[in-house]
Amino acid sequence: MIDNPYYSPDVHEDFELISIGRLELEDGGVIDDCRLAVRTWGTLDEAKDNAILIPTWYSGTHQIWADAYVGPGHALDPEKYFIVAVNQIGNGLSTSPHNVDDPDIAMSKFPHVRIGDDVVAQERLLREHFGIERLALVVGGSMGAQQTYEWAVRFPDKVLRAAPIAGTARNTPHDFLFTETLIAQIHSDPGFAGGEYATHAQVEDGLRRHAHLWGTMGFSTEFWKQEKWSALGFASREQFLTDFLEPYFTAMDPNALLTMAWKWQRGDVSRHTDGDLEAALGRITAKTFVMPIDEDMFFPVRDCADEQRLIPGSELRVVEDVHGHLGLFAVDPGFMPQIDMHLADLLAEPVETPVPAEAAALSR
Amino acid sequence: MIDNPYYSPDVHEDFELISIGRLELEDGGVIDDCRLAVRTWGTLDEAKDNAILIPTWYSGTHQIWADAYVGPGHALDPEKYFIVAVNQIGNGLSTSPHNVDDPDIAMSKFPHVRIGDDVVAQERLLREHFGIERLALVVGGSMGAQQTYEWAVRFPDKVLRAAPIAGTARNTPHDFLFTETLIAQIHSDPGFAGGEYATHAQVEDGLRRHAHLWGTMGFSTEFWKQEKWSALGFASREQFLTDFLEPYFTAMDPNALLTMAWKWQRGDVSRHTDGDLEAALGRITAKTFVMPIDEDMFFPVRDCADEQRLIPGSELRVVEDVHGHLGLFAVDPGFMPQIDMHLADLLAEPVETPVPAEAAALSR
Repeated sequence: MIDNPYYSPDVHEDFELISIGRLELEDGGVIDDCRLAVRTWGTLDEAKDNAILIPTWYSGTHQIWADAYVGPGHALDPEKYFIVAVNQIGNGLSTSPHNVDDPDIAMSKFPHVRIGDDVVAQERLLREHFGIERLALVVGGSMGAQQTYEWAVRFPDKVLRAAPIAGTARNTPHDFLFTETLIAQIHSDPGFAGGEYATHAQVEDGLRRHAHLWGTMGFSTEFWKQEKWSALGFASREQFLTDFLEPYFTAMDPNALLTMAWKWQRGDVSRHTDGDLEAALGRITAKTFVMPIDEDMFFPVRDCADEQRLIPGSELRVVEDVHGHLGLFAVDPGFMPQIDMHLADLLAEPVETPVPAEAAALSR
Repeated sequence: MIDNPYYSPDVHEDFELISIGRLELEDGGVIDDCRLAVRTWGTLDEAKDNAILIPTWYSGTHQIWADAYVGPGHALDPEKYFIVAVNQIGNGLSTSPHNVDDPDIAMSKFPHVRIGDDVVAQERLLREHFGIERLALVVGGSMGAQQTYEWAVRFPDKVLRAAPIAGTARNTPHDFLFTETLIAQIHSDPGFAGGEYATHAQVEDGLRRHAHLWGTMGFSTEFWKQEKWSALGFASREQFLTDFLEPYFTAMDPNALLTMAWKWQRGDVSRHTDGDLEAALGRITAKTFVMPIDEDMFFPVRDCADEQRLIPGSELRVVEDVHGHLGLFAVDPGFMPQIDMHLADLLAEPVETPVPAEAAALSR
């Protein structure tokens, strides 16, 4: 185990580690004691029908949702909803290569985890720990969108509404290759030592290069041209890199990033339907708003729109933000009002209470 | 000197090394014996007014122009025009870090070269070696577009027509950062040894990572989604990387790429006008077609269009190609017909023979 202060309660407030027990993974590995880092807001009502689930994105945690998305005045309002943010497996807070006790799966021996594993783990958590059988909404950005799609396809009876933001149901080839270049930055650092570094600081060079790739692909050409970093309080584009992107990523655990990267690359709901994406998305019964960001360089609107057209009754809600994909950090003053408007519209959509699972199975 | 077979006549046909003598550089260095690798087609007419200049792009040489752009049936027709392709300084064929005799500027000691240095060298070559005082057309892609703009701003009386393809007059911040990530791939390879490697093969890992960055940014998201590599004869996207992009870039000299990268990052015609881009582009008297590629991820149409609006009498001619920036390789069947159409239109544009330079100077 490596003690990395980034994953401490000093940086990430108010979360609880909840064990869901043994988790057998799709790719054959096992996590004997899978712990999920969970943050909740609000109160579950008696009917247990006001629950909202938030899965997290690559390198992200529940904290950005606490800081920007959830609270009074937002669509994700704890006064109305019981909101559960679950950190994805391998994100550094939930069970991850650097924080497991079990030497058989520590560090470089950590097994491959898929988007489906996270969703299975989350479903078990919600059911066994909170008694939640149905979700009023699943909402997530980027890899959180991948998990949102996986929820809606895998457990259609349990998801009433879905809002995948800036992400896809089946990862694109371009995204796969972009992620390969992220991975290569870490692997090529001699300090990585095949994943058996003594501290993440040994991989600082690789993490810094990894941060710089986010600089070109994570933001948009217009972000840099319009010098949007200036509005964020930075004096130059160099300072934006050295004082924001570099410290952000160099604080993280390299094996955690690699676990998430591998998972991201292989997100694909059509694994349920022998590769037939139309059939997979056709299963969705949730009222779905597909919400790409217009300036996203690697989840472009057209890729998201192609999927949206395959989802019955869905709507395409494009979010405008010159920050591009990392607009998800909600730093543009225009970002959250759009998110809140779309999510409020979605939450106001009437949905039919689905037929109980047993009856649905019989009618198929 | 390193003997790199990629820069031999086996790979690059029919070029001549022409010395233009001592070249003092904008950034303070000197190349005592600056040799330019030059390929020509056709015959210069007696009035010497049928000359076309082609400067080269990053990692490129005259060879791609020979293979795809120049010849009977193309707008760049040797039956009509005397066409001169000049390899940029530092591209591995012209004077470059690995091929200079002078130990004072070899390898890591090679001086910084700017776009303006290339254009000054080319002007001297054309005037002193060929007796050419005016160009019917300057046309180039990417860094060749940077040189095209530099020609039109620096020597307005000498350029009758200009066709910058997929490039900008002033490099954008996003491009600067993308190029930084390319540079970092080479610098981070221990085999680079501060630029004093014994053979480029020692830097193969870095060059391979550099190739992979071109895989995500050089092509478009649609290129990968539509599996366009298939039409190019590859069986998978992995094979496209391992059998095309990797061998393409790992054959090259790392210091040559770094020389070009530094130059690319700082291309800026507004150096002539104290940073005033409008004033610089306002100097252009050449009839100019600005030709971005619609799917280019780092020279997007809007950036090129912003500059085009500042050029008197210019036109925006967008080239459609799902291959993105590296559509410049002219592999899409639809690419060359568009280039030929636009260049033929441009060459058919009547232009006023400019007032001789002396008279123009008096009238200012």
